[in-house]
Amino acid sequence: MELATDEEKMYMEEALKEAALAALEGEIPVGAILVQDGRVIARNHNRRERAHDATAHAEILVIREACEKLRRWRLADSTLYVTMEPCPMCAGAIYNARIGRVVFGASDSVAGACGSLFQIPLHPSLHANTIIKAGIEAERCKKILQEFFTRRR
Amino acid sequence: MELATDEEKMYMEEALKEAALAALEGEIPVGAILVQDGRVIARNHNRRERAHDATAHAEILVIREACEKLRRWRLADSTLYVTMEPCPMCAGAIYNARIGRVVFGASDSVAGACGSLFQIPLHPSLHANTIIKAGIEAERCKKILQEFFTRRR
Repeated sequence: MELATDEEKMYMEEALKEAALAALEGEIPVGAILVQDGRVIARNHNRRERAHDATAHAEILVIREACEKLRRWRLADSTLYVTMEPCPMCAGAIYNARIGRVVFGASDSVAGACGSLFQIPLHPSLHANTIIKAGIEAERCKKILQEFFTRRR
Repeated sequence: MELATDEEKMYMEEALKEAALAALEGEIPVGAILVQDGRVIARNHNRRERAHDATAHAEILVIREACEKLRRWRLADSTLYVTMEPCPMCAGAIYNARIGRVVFGASDSVAGACGSLFQIPLHPSLHANTIIKAGIEAERCKKILQEFFTRRR
């Protein structure tokens, strides 16, 4: 696990607030925020069940919102904070949007695509320059998931 | 290359019409359609530039539309036809939506995620049951891309 800066902890706190909202809505609690020039330009959480949409993961929703606000699909100057390691779809979207930096909390050994099962944004053939930082507030990010699944059983 | 059935050729023809619309709009020409019970329930093409949206690939757009129409995120009973091999984001969305069958045209050696660079929907750890058929009308699917890039140079 890498050491977290105060800034990283502060933004992960915001992502965790989004994850908590997901849990309240009966969604797997994953939250994400997108930061550009020190401003949160998009924040959201997993909405798959309520939106009946297989693509409505937190990361996809914030990337779409940021693209819409900035009216461009390249987000190289932004940092995505997300409580859980992105899945293949979201890691692919991070690559497609050329996101400059990804900071995530809990790793996902089953389907994580930023180093666990796949390493999509840093695959050498894709020539991406994304910086990935893992394990920020990992325990809290994992705990909110574990509590959700325990309650659901 | 596998032999194409008449049905597969017919549906790929529809996906090619979508790709042609993308080219007219100055978008990289990739088209997709989603078929369920012999009905086309969603059709679309790449809209990344016009929508300023990194996630607006043909496959994501048809999956979102189909989820919205059917009000569910599981699309196991459907077939996705797409003119080019899905990228990691789209292959991840295919997995997330549990799409039953994917039929694609041209392979993508650079970023293809249904067998070329990655094999996301059939990765053993993901326990997916997606059937993938490659190379249907591959030459025509490739030609529309090549012509687009030649004109743009």
